[in-house]
Amino acid sequence: MSARSRAWQLLEATDSNDTVAKWVNYFLLGLVFLNVVAVILGTVESLQSRYRACFDYFELFSIMIFSAEYIGRMWSCVEDPRFAHPVTGRFRYAFHFMSLMDLAAILPFFTPFIATDTRATRIFRLLRLVRIVKIGRYYKTLTLFAAVVREKREELILTTVLMFMLLILSACLMYYCENEVQPDKFSSVPQSMWWSIETLTTVGYGDIYPVTTLGKIFSGMISILGLGMFALPAGILGAGFVEEIQKRKKIAKYCPHCGKEIQ
Amino acid sequence: MSARSRAWQLLEATDSNDTVAKWVNYFLLGLVFLNVVAVILGTVESLQSRYRACFDYFELFSIMIFSAEYIGRMWSCVEDPRFAHPVTGRFRYAFHFMSLMDLAAILPFFTPFIATDTRATRIFRLLRLVRIVKIGRYYKTLTLFAAVVREKREELILTTVLMFMLLILSACLMYYCENEVQPDKFSSVPQSMWWSIETLTTVGYGDIYPVTTLGKIFSGMISILGLGMFALPAGILGAGFVEEIQKRKKIAKYCPHCGKEIQ
Amino acid sequence: MSARSRAWQLLEATDSNDTVAKWVNYFLLGLVFLNVVAVILGTVESLQSRYRACFDYFELFSIMIFSAEYIGRMWSCVEDPRFAHPVTGRFRYAFHFMSLMDLAAILPFFTPFIATDTRATRIFRLLRLVRIVKIGRYYKTLTLFAAVVREKREELILTTVLMFMLLILSACLMYYCENEVQPDKFSSVPQSMWWSIETLTTVGYGDIYPVTTLGKIFSGMISILGLGMFALPAGILGAGFVEEIQKRKKIAKYCPHCGKEIQ
Amino acid sequence: MSARSRAWQLLEATDSNDTVAKWVNYFLLGLVFLNVVAVILGTVESLQSRYRACFDYFELFSIMIFSAEYIGRMWSCVEDPRFAHPVTGRFRYAFHFMSLMDLAAILPFFTPFIATDTRATRIFRLLRLVRIVKIGRYYKTLTLFAAVVREKREELILTTVLMFMLLILSACLMYYCENEVQPDKFSSVPQSMWWSIETLTTVGYGDIYPVTTLGKIFSGMISILGLGMFALPAGILGAGFVEEIQKRKKIAKYCPHCGKEIQ
Repeated sequence: MSARSRAWQLLEATDSNDTVAKWVNYFLLGLVFLNVVAVILGTVESLQSRYRACFDYFELFSIMIFSAEYIGRMWSCVEDPRFAHPVTGRFRYAFHFMSLMDLAAILPFFTPFIATDTRATRIFRLLRLVRIVKIGRYYKTLTLFAAVVREKREELILTTVLMFMLLILSACLMYYCENEVQPDKFSSVPQSMWWSIETLTTVGYGDIYPVTTLGKIFSGMISILGLGMFALPAGILGAGFVEEIQKRKKIAKYCPHCGKEIQ
Repeated sequence: MSARSRAWQLLEATDSNDTVAKWVNYFLLGLVFLNVVAVILGTVESLQSRYRACFDYFELFSIMIFSAEYIGRMWSCVEDPRFAHPVTGRFRYAFHFMSLMDLAAILPFFTPFIATDTRATRIFRLLRLVRIVKIGRYYKTLTLFAAVVREKREELILTTVLMFMLLILSACLMYYCENEVQPDKFSSVPQSMWWSIETLTTVGYGDIYPVTTLGKIFSGMISILGLGMFALPAGILGAGFVEEIQKRKKIAKYCPHCGKEIQ
Repeated sequence: MSARSRAWQLLEATDSNDTVAKWVNYFLLGLVFLNVVAVILGTVESLQSRYRACFDYFELFSIMIFSAEYIGRMWSCVEDPRFAHPVTGRFRYAFHFMSLMDLAAILPFFTPFIATDTRATRIFRLLRLVRIVKIGRYYKTLTLFAAVVREKREELILTTVLMFMLLILSACLMYYCENEVQPDKFSSVPQSMWWSIETLTTVGYGDIYPVTTLGKIFSGMISILGLGMFALPAGILGAGFVEEIQKRKKIAKYCPHCGKEIQ
Repeated sequence: MSARSRAWQLLEATDSNDTVAKWVNYFLLGLVFLNVVAVILGTVESLQSRYRACFDYFELFSIMIFSAEYIGRMWSCVEDPRFAHPVTGRFRYAFHFMSLMDLAAILPFFTPFIATDTRATRIFRLLRLVRIVKIGRYYKTLTLFAAVVREKREELILTTVLMFMLLILSACLMYYCENEVQPDKFSSVPQSMWWSIETLTTVGYGDIYPVTTLGKIFSGMISILGLGMFALPAGILGAGFVEEIQKRKKIAKYCPHCGKEIQ
């Protein structure tokens, strides 16, 4: 086996019996996870000022590993029949979603003249977290989720459209009720929409709420209507899961007595 | 084909192969959408003062198009067998829900002596958004929603009645607990109902909450009871979706006695 | 037919073709509804001071009607085979839940020496609202609700027990985290339980919340755990509705081909 | 029957016809419950200062009973075939989850040199509450819950992972939007995560919320996305209950080909 072929095997871990490949991937996933922790903790002033050197060294180390991985992938991807052509195959691989994520995670480091705020660019490294879903046993579950969402696509879109209409109508209504009494809070319809979202999602921070009697009556009606509307996705998704699971079960079911397939 | 027949075809877009009719309807829907955006942005003081001319011209343009559409519909509706009579048919068409919405969207512009606040009347143009649901592929989904709500009509009404009873009882209870300590917040039962709605929908702005021990105990019990009660619609709608989808599928079932299919 | 038998028919409206009985019951229900509105509006200071006479006359009128109804029921209940005995039958009828509600609604008026605050006693009239559920078409739905709750009794009780355990554990945890920093807010475990209820039901008024880092971390974990736990009732009730509806449908289903029953 | 065998029977109450064992267990459960109440009320300053003696005596009494129970269990556990060996059997029993809970509930009392704050250690007595779930009729329900959670394990883990990713991404996004305007509120990503949890669980205390336009737009999108994601567990668990109940019922199904029953 060529070194390039081995590199591809190690990086993609397609063979579940390949222990080395598995550990390489766990190491890379672990590094992604530590990078996420570093991005999060790096924003804490007190930690940043005290352990600046640690953060910087870890940064440098991560970038080196990720760059090596990216170069390795670009070099070895031609082993995959889909990207076999040395030039166009590599190009197509480079423009895959996952590859672009990987590039976005390292590019800012090498282009200091573009990135003025390196902290902002480190956020791209979070996107590498999506690799986590490729772990075998969760992948099947993810396809179940995707199947349910795809199956119920139109119901979910329609619910979203209805929600947006309720959002806009309630924001307009509230603007006309409250604008005069609270011109600083309900200063415009977009501001009222902030109230609408807070109320319909039942977050209710309390930074903006109606004070007029009419506003309170409408607000109450909108809250209850919204609650019913936001109960729809749970119902739709619940029904979708019941349906999808039954469908998956029904694929090839055989009668134990006569051995024939039951549809 | 007469011009009137063609006009009706273009405005109603009943034939899905009619590309021109499709584009006419997309243009009208797009204009409705832009009107909604204009109504929303038109309330932002800074935008309004700077782009007043743009808003006014767009307003004029929209009204002209919508008026032309309304006249066109009124003229050509007799092509539809349901509204065939030149006078009574047109009258009946004019009093359809959709037609009244369309009229409400343009009328205020032509009656300045009635409408003192033109901003308030522009809100009627939002109602034209309901035309959006007539788009073919979402229409089928909407009928599913409508079927579920119709099927579960009585359960939903009963839940609403139970909620209202809980709302009123909890508001009265809270009024007697908190009125003495917070006479400005829980000043009357209607005021307490505002607290009840906030709490039962779990919005909780924080402008009004119990402070007495008894009030907190009752509030806790009401919150938990309310949460269970508000879990009912999700459960009912979920069961309704499961039921309706199974009904629509008409799964081929076989009688265990004679082995024939049951529809 | 005797007058007593007719009175019983009018008050109970057991025969759905009896138009007079139907209207008598609608009148009584309407009066109950108006009483509820009067109780609610009677607490608004401005309305009370201006329309005191109206409220008082309506009060007197309602009490007279309700008293007449109560006496009528007590007199005529012996027509029902279940309460046929003139003395013990009437006693048993008087101790039914509905009858006690009716008595509670009128008794305070006749016992001024007991009731110090007549406003507080008027709240009992709200309880007459429960008569609303006896309206035929909603009664069947209510039995569905009752069947689902009875069927899922143990699941719901266990969920409630688990919730209480989470409530108590989180309150204790939060007390040890926050007591030192916010001794006025988290002054004791019962006070912390108020926070727990607010958080687990996601109401979140904002009058009490953790400020320490440890408190915030625990609070976050508790919120997410609580959200999952409070998703249980919706799931249980949803499954219960699916189950109950299928069970009701399956009662006596016949094959259209051979006419035999399908289990 | 030996005294040791009888002690084991009394403490474990394996035989549901053994009335004495049932009452011993009810007494122990009741004492656990009273201990929980005592732990909660013991934190209320006014009660503690007035009834200190009562609390102390009850404490002493409880510890004695619980110690006696623990010693009894340790002495008699060899009656159970699983823990038959006098030394290793007892050791294995002592390291069971339930036994460790029991030990944690009494140990702090006997180790004053370790426990500096006896109040903090009393919290372990709450953990004895888990014995409550061993009550027969709820045990079956608990196994249903456990079966559903186990069956849907991977879906729930994946939902949790997706939630965490949304949590982290939204916290980072918000930090970059709001840090400059509200450096005291959104001071770091961990602080923003507190906002994310508050918002995604829809608690919304109101101690921290976005004020910039961009922050509000992202916040609105995150709220709606989060609401959909948090509707997933309800849907998954609902589907899980439907599935599990159907599985337990083992509905007699017939093969359409040979007509025989399929288990």
